[in-house]
Amino acid sequence: MSNTFGSVFRATTFGESHGGGVGVVIDGCPPRLELSEADIQSDLDRRRPGQSSLVTQRQEADTAEILSGVFGGYTTGTPIGILVRNTDAKPGAYEHLKDVYRPSHADFTYNAKYGFRNWTGGGRASARETIGRVAAAAVARKLLRVGAGIEVLAWVRSVHEHVAEVDAATVSLDDVEAGPTRCPDVAVAERIAEAIEDARRDGDSLGGVVECVCRNVPAGLGEPVFDKLDARLGAAMMSLPAAKGIEIGTGFAATTMTGREHNDPFVPSVSGVDVRTNHSGGIQGGISNRADIVFRVAFKPTSTIASEQDTVTRSGEATTLEAKGRHDPCVLPRAVPMVEAMALLTLADHWLMQRSVDVLAPLLELP
Amino acid sequence: MSNTFGSVFRATTFGESHGGGVGVVIDGCPPRLELSEADIQSDLDRRRPGQSSLVTQRQEADTAEILSGVFGGYTTGTPIGILVRNTDAKPGAYEHLKDVYRPSHADFTYNAKYGFRNWTGGGRASARETIGRVAAAAVARKLLRVGAGIEVLAWVRSVHEHVAEVDAATVSLDDVEAGPTRCPDVAVAERIAEAIEDARRDGDSLGGVVECVCRNVPAGLGEPVFDKLDARLGAAMMSLPAAKGIEIGTGFAATTMTGREHNDPFVPSVSGVDVRTNHSGGIQGGISNRADIVFRVAFKPTSTIASEQDTVTRSGEATTLEAKGRHDPCVLPRAVPMVEAMALLTLADHWLMQRSVDVLAPLLELP
Amino acid sequence: MSNTFGSVFRATTFGESHGGGVGVVIDGCPPRLELSEADIQSDLDRRRPGQSSLVTQRQEADTAEILSGVFGGYTTGTPIGILVRNTDAKPGAYEHLKDVYRPSHADFTYNAKYGFRNWTGGGRASARETIGRVAAAAVARKLLRVGAGIEVLAWVRSVHEHVAEVDAATVSLDDVEAGPTRCPDVAVAERIAEAIEDARRDGDSLGGVVECVCRNVPAGLGEPVFDKLDARLGAAMMSLPAAKGIEIGTGFAATTMTGREHNDPFVPSVSGVDVRTNHSGGIQGGISNRADIVFRVAFKPTSTIASEQDTVTRSGEATTLEAKGRHDPCVLPRAVPMVEAMALLTLADHWLMQRSVDVLAPLLELP
Amino acid sequence: MSNTFGSVFRATTFGESHGGGVGVVIDGCPPRLELSEADIQSDLDRRRPGQSSLVTQRQEADTAEILSGVFGGYTTGTPIGILVRNTDAKPGAYEHLKDVYRPSHADFTYNAKYGFRNWTGGGRASARETIGRVAAAAVARKLLRVGAGIEVLAWVRSVHEHVAEVDAATVSLDDVEAGPTRCPDVAVAERIAEAIEDARRDGDSLGGVVECVCRNVPAGLGEPVFDKLDARLGAAMMSLPAAKGIEIGTGFAATTMTGREHNDPFVPSVSGVDVRTNHSGGIQGGISNRADIVFRVAFKPTSTIASEQDTVTRSGEATTLEAKGRHDPCVLPRAVPMVEAMALLTLADHWLMQRSVDVLAPLLELP
Repeated sequence: MSNTFGSVFRATTFGESHGGGVGVVIDGCPPRLELSEADIQSDLDRRRPGQSSLVTQRQEADTAEILSGVFGGYTTGTPIGILVRNTDAKPGAYEHLKDVYRPSHADFTYNAKYGFRNWTGGGRASARETIGRVAAAAVARKLLRVGAGIEVLAWVRSVHEHVAEVDAATVSLDDVEAGPTRCPDVAVAERIAEAIEDARRDGDSLGGVVECVCRNVPAGLGEPVFDKLDARLGAAMMSLPAAKGIEIGTGFAATTMTGREHNDPFVPSVSGVDVRTNHSGGIQGGISNRADIVFRVAFKPTSTIASEQDTVTRSGEATTLEAKGRHDPCVLPRAVPMVEAMALLTLADHWLMQRSVDVLAPLLELP
Repeated sequence: MSNTFGSVFRATTFGESHGGGVGVVIDGCPPRLELSEADIQSDLDRRRPGQSSLVTQRQEADTAEILSGVFGGYTTGTPIGILVRNTDAKPGAYEHLKDVYRPSHADFTYNAKYGFRNWTGGGRASARETIGRVAAAAVARKLLRVGAGIEVLAWVRSVHEHVAEVDAATVSLDDVEAGPTRCPDVAVAERIAEAIEDARRDGDSLGGVVECVCRNVPAGLGEPVFDKLDARLGAAMMSLPAAKGIEIGTGFAATTMTGREHNDPFVPSVSGVDVRTNHSGGIQGGISNRADIVFRVAFKPTSTIASEQDTVTRSGEATTLEAKGRHDPCVLPRAVPMVEAMALLTLADHWLMQRSVDVLAPLLELP
Repeated sequence: MSNTFGSVFRATTFGESHGGGVGVVIDGCPPRLELSEADIQSDLDRRRPGQSSLVTQRQEADTAEILSGVFGGYTTGTPIGILVRNTDAKPGAYEHLKDVYRPSHADFTYNAKYGFRNWTGGGRASARETIGRVAAAAVARKLLRVGAGIEVLAWVRSVHEHVAEVDAATVSLDDVEAGPTRCPDVAVAERIAEAIEDARRDGDSLGGVVECVCRNVPAGLGEPVFDKLDARLGAAMMSLPAAKGIEIGTGFAATTMTGREHNDPFVPSVSGVDVRTNHSGGIQGGISNRADIVFRVAFKPTSTIASEQDTVTRSGEATTLEAKGRHDPCVLPRAVPMVEAMALLTLADHWLMQRSVDVLAPLLELP
Repeated sequence: MSNTFGSVFRATTFGESHGGGVGVVIDGCPPRLELSEADIQSDLDRRRPGQSSLVTQRQEADTAEILSGVFGGYTTGTPIGILVRNTDAKPGAYEHLKDVYRPSHADFTYNAKYGFRNWTGGGRASARETIGRVAAAAVARKLLRVGAGIEVLAWVRSVHEHVAEVDAATVSLDDVEAGPTRCPDVAVAERIAEAIEDARRDGDSLGGVVECVCRNVPAGLGEPVFDKLDARLGAAMMSLPAAKGIEIGTGFAATTMTGREHNDPFVPSVSGVDVRTNHSGGIQGGISNRADIVFRVAFKPTSTIASEQDTVTRSGEATTLEAKGRHDPCVLPRAVPMVEAMALLTLADHWLMQRSVDVLAPLLELP
């Protein structure tokens, strides 16, 4: 469904960049989870604009209000409604976009689809839409931590041609949050920060790659055949604004390896079965194998740029456009919590789904 | 849902590599579409094993029987059941896999998930599972052609280090089907065929990239925010056996471009609005923009190889395994119709979905 | 899905009787529908408490705020978030219910399900939950009226032993809204009002039957086999608080008729095919046949009563309970807009669904 | 979804009364359940035609073949495909129905919906469609018995004006299967058998009521608010051919009781909390309360009768019709396994759903 993600842990988001607010209804969160607005706010704060000079200067507190589903500090099992008000909305600043399409933005396609569009700040196609996702994912994060010890962490792996060296097995949240770029390789982070500042000054924008690791995921998550864990992660990541690609484990580079090189040998371990290498990225046959799940998401350069571009008007005449308004010259730093959010929502859903698969295990011994 | 793909045009597949058969139930195909078993058989024939020396030597006629949903040569709007019997099943040939996990195959993860697995020929994790998808997609193909003139075509872009030069705008089905590799670049196709033969002789396997173009897709398909057309294509492709990555348009290469380079300028055209370049791959804001939809899928080398590999037994002891049985040294040639199938299922679903969005357009004029 | 109703026109509700508020997210409403808060408020006003001495004295303005999905007075096709704040919440008034189960209320079962419950005012099991439904249905009502001319009207057919004579073919909204009972038979309405006042004074409660007619529904709505229009109406009505039965057309009385008596003969008409009688209640084979859809819903007497009753505590000890707080001695008058709401949501969903069935009709002539 | 029932335990059915066959794909059945074709056949045998002179004389063995999802006698967790071939199909016998609508049958409405219909034997609207449901429910029955000790039993409570006295708490399968009417009240059963024979001779048909009890259902099943257990049962039962009403517990009779009379007092019991009466029919607030779930379904008289009736042709001209072909003069005896089937599918789904609600219970103690 269009604005709902998940089958068991279901997040339905709503809201545009301008209007009463944005938010989410979470349906299917188990009862008895200790939850407060502080649990949600910390992730929202990592996503919000105005954190540094590298990102959009829109000023939003992005304060979350829990409307329902929590009683006496615990989830009740009923829908958790969360609302974040829009405060720094300047609809007038977008008047010049009313009748013209920004190249590579969603202006033209929304108009083609709906015969109509909300032209203030991108409407539903604004990155502001992801607030609902991040809020829901903060609940998923707590559920997965408390229920299964699962941790999800993402970081900026590259911006433009600057590629970081990061060890997915050991990188920490502190490493990621050490600087405004969210690139844990300090030297590369510096070059990235400069490149983003240069792009902003130049009225241009940059893309890059976010990498993500999911640790302590039990073996067995993922549903063959269409809801394979990697298929669901694929949908989750490709649903993010500006995402144009995803690869799991060795990914595209695996296409130039042979089977002997790429296969991950199994080895005995004290806690069961381990893999000696992890080219599979923790997923085999669409199901988690207990190794770290590792994947990368490609983000194109921001389409809204402060440079003159050729385009057409709603009535089909050629024109040029130079975007005004506030925007990110590079979405990568703020994409990090969004990638984590979609991974968390995916894992929470699959972790709960697996309960109904396991149901006969304690009852029945196979011969 | 696990074994169902789609919201409006829904394909529910079933079946393992060994057992009574494999098939699909299509729910939501509109009535009045002329349909016969011949429409389905042509796509199944492109998918089936034993077509050439490059693929698995299992011999299966893969004959489709329509069980329901068609009357007097036309679809009735009720579920279309399609069954393909298994005939060349040799369960005994897999006895040596009963208690040991093939590295990077789904053996271990299925066992972890279900506490149990069908060890004959890969069970549900066999590529034979895709028969139901291809059969359903043959119906989608006809629906999209008759209803909207949409065409979907895929080909092998690379195997191992051999990368073809193919013009997505002009390549034809005849070009693709000219040789057993399904690579339309004749010179590269020859090198690919040799490389696959070498890998087979060497007990090894190869991966590669399939590229796909969807032509004549109207603007407006794709549902924000979680069912963006690229998100759904992402899920669709990542659900294929051995798929490890997908990228739309310029994809990962877009991460090293700037916004000025990557943005696709709009230009007026007789039939509406066109794009001058197509870095977006036909999708902007998750919605089709009338340009060709172009994407690439990465397939890892086949995990089942005829070489000795380290692994463990079900009881957790170290052992070695040399796979027997029939398998593809490279899935790429047969992955081509599978990629097309998933694109067709995705587009049919979104094309039908858009009907309920358009509903007020003929009635209401906006001011 | 638990808190989502519908497949194409989807309403996801949230909220408890006490807490930040209640509301709904509507996903799938077509774009270009003129919509304002006034469209929603009129239906909410018919549902809200405190309208007369016959219903609960809780005072709530129940003012709807549209948070998203409407721009410039028209729907945009993106999710419509609607919020109604709780204002007259008195959580302290329910302290005596914290550790004891009200007989035939949801207290015990929520506790059994969730291991925990929100004991203030019924929590999610409060009739206040239906605000989200009524708000969403107000949008559905406008869509169906503008798009198809469909009208839905319900009324109180009986309370306790007082059964009204109402002609479903001709009764009007004005007839229904003429008095506080919403029973359009004036003489019976008077007896019903007295009976409800008597029950209140006596610390008791009453049940009854709501009848509903859907007019101008085109033939062809309803999806065989599990989403038959009557099956979906069945689910819709039985999901209402206190509903214990539903019957379509002649319903249970049809079981004592013979086929010759019950069958509705078809007759030619200027506008196509009509039925001479309407024992089927407008639905045959699960699909609408253009006749009025008529059905009845049974509501049990309100379970919360101001009389001493035997019950048990959370720790399993026998006790007695006399409910305090504000409640309806008879839900029937306020159930009328709720029944309409669920019928409207059902019809909007099926009306939109039918678009994807019709898709080839304009293109293809059958031989 | 139209031809799919359930969210976790999902049954997708296909097939018409004439054509290759009918069947079902079950997705979501847990692995490790011992299952063979014999488990399915026993329920199919109770449903099949030709069992006695009271039902249609079509002769069908209705032999079930399991196509997939079972390995070595146990379910694998992958989709269970089940096929039943049509053998006694006589499409020619329906030629006279090609261009004329049987009153109160689905002929006209299918034509209105699809612009087209399969006129052989009712097509998808034939009761033969329920084979897939009964086959899937046989698997659900085994799952619920093995996993939770749940039992479901239905019987004929009335036919026309003959109403049986049956104690829902004690009636057994042997009582029900003692005679061809499936009415366990022997005296009334005799009168029912005579009435059905009379109706057949007279070219007429009869309706009636099936009653059903679900025993040993744990407290806590059912999902507020739209997937209440009674809402899902309502949809399930109203989706059966010829069903026109459902009531839970005291049902419509509850509307003439007062709250004091209707409320079920809670009483302490050794195993937890019990109810002294069961007017609620085992469901309160949409959730099971551990008491027997009891409900009744109204079936109209069979619409296909061997008497002359007024109707119209496809081209809209008045005509008369006297149905030929084989049909049931009263569906009640064969409706019994169908009602059980839909109850079993509903309960299996909710029982599995509850796994993901319970997930934190063993981990977390509330303060």
